[in-house]
Amino acid sequence: MESNKLDDWKQTAPLAICLVSGGLDSCVCAAIAGQTCRLAFLHVNYGQRTEARELRAFRDIADHLEVTKRLVADISYLKAIGGSALTDHEIAVPRNSVGTRDVPVTYVPFRNSHLLAIAVSWGEVLGARYIFIGATETDNSGYPDCRGSYFSAFNRLIREGTRPATHLEIVTPLLMSTKGEVVRRGADLGAPLHLTWSCYEKDRLACGRCDSCLLRLRGFASAGLNDPIPYEER
Amino acid sequence: MESNKLDDWKQTAPLAICLVSGGLDSCVCAAIAGQTCRLAFLHVNYGQRTEARELRAFRDIADHLEVTKRLVADISYLKAIGGSALTDHEIAVPRNSVGTRDVPVTYVPFRNSHLLAIAVSWGEVLGARYIFIGATETDNSGYPDCRGSYFSAFNRLIREGTRPATHLEIVTPLLMSTKGEVVRRGADLGAPLHLTWSCYEKDRLACGRCDSCLLRLRGFASAGLNDPIPYEER
Repeated sequence: MESNKLDDWKQTAPLAICLVSGGLDSCVCAAIAGQTCRLAFLHVNYGQRTEARELRAFRDIADHLEVTKRLVADISYLKAIGGSALTDHEIAVPRNSVGTRDVPVTYVPFRNSHLLAIAVSWGEVLGARYIFIGATETDNSGYPDCRGSYFSAFNRLIREGTRPATHLEIVTPLLMSTKGEVVRRGADLGAPLHLTWSCYEKDRLACGRCDSCLLRLRGFASAGLNDPIPYEER
Repeated sequence: MESNKLDDWKQTAPLAICLVSGGLDSCVCAAIAGQTCRLAFLHVNYGQRTEARELRAFRDIADHLEVTKRLVADISYLKAIGGSALTDHEIAVPRNSVGTRDVPVTYVPFRNSHLLAIAVSWGEVLGARYIFIGATETDNSGYPDCRGSYFSAFNRLIREGTRPATHLEIVTPLLMSTKGEVVRRGADLGAPLHLTWSCYEKDRLACGRCDSCLLRLRGFASAGLNDPIPYEER
């Protein structure tokens, strides 16, 4: 594409707010959004254990994709509310519980609603058209706020609760993807997977044992690729 | 009621999260909730102009009603997002715009969704049954997130996005009330109206001129009562 055509495209493309945690799914989701949209990146700190490491991953990914419109929001009240192993240090982060059918103890009550509400407020002010979120129903089964029916209900809420001129819509391109498919898609798009962080427990070398590391490692294995981030010796 | 019966009642009554801004409507709404429920009070700072004064009103009302379960959450990112006269000091607070049909410039984009999401997360952890919010469609017409259809959509979102064992429901007892009816109901219930604060502009003496003051004053006039809070000389 010639440079003036690229500029034309950039000017007329719709704006997408991307929720970017710094993990694998959100990185690939942002790369998908970037194929058709101008990007604005939103990151939310909610007092989770690896908050600082995730924020670094967010910034690294935004730098890599040259996204300058960024918002980092702090909702540390979720830590005060507690009720999850991710925000309450008295609840242990589970290992090897992937595949059980209960709502996992890492479920942060109604968390995605906070992230999406921030995205909607910001998107309404910026005049954005889409909100991209890298939620997956397949591997995160058990999180009630990661299901398609939940996102449909949120889209209805947006229609009811914003200005008539606002036309914001949540898009979940990875909802039905397995982790292996997410890795494969990210690799195909040239997404900066080496800059992502998934571990729930550690922040220098990934632990390789928490549920999030296990899912990630299985995803790379299933895609037939090596995970480029460093892990603790096992 | 004898004291042991009162204790029985307190133990078995459902728990209600009350959104208490410190204004008239939320005070009366909390008094209504207190007739049938145990209470937990939630206050949210969002970088609005009169944040400190509203927080004082929240504490005064909670003290008066002897509510010990309290959460004060800070969502100052709403100020960073801007887009409203309540959070952006470069947009003037309107005067005498009550009754116009557009979305008012005091509309904080999607604000109630943030407040309700916090209430749901807290309510899910506490095992609450209800969320009381003192929204009124009548006087706040024009705020898209104050309509019955919005709250219905949010109740559906709660059902989709929380644990199967959670049964939280938003209750809007004042939705169809005029400000005069709210004042009258509050007076009948003995709600501490003298501790509330409504002014969007000032924090020591209410200005009496902003839309919020005008609605409040009309409400007291229509109820045939004197507003017990102090106003600037006019």
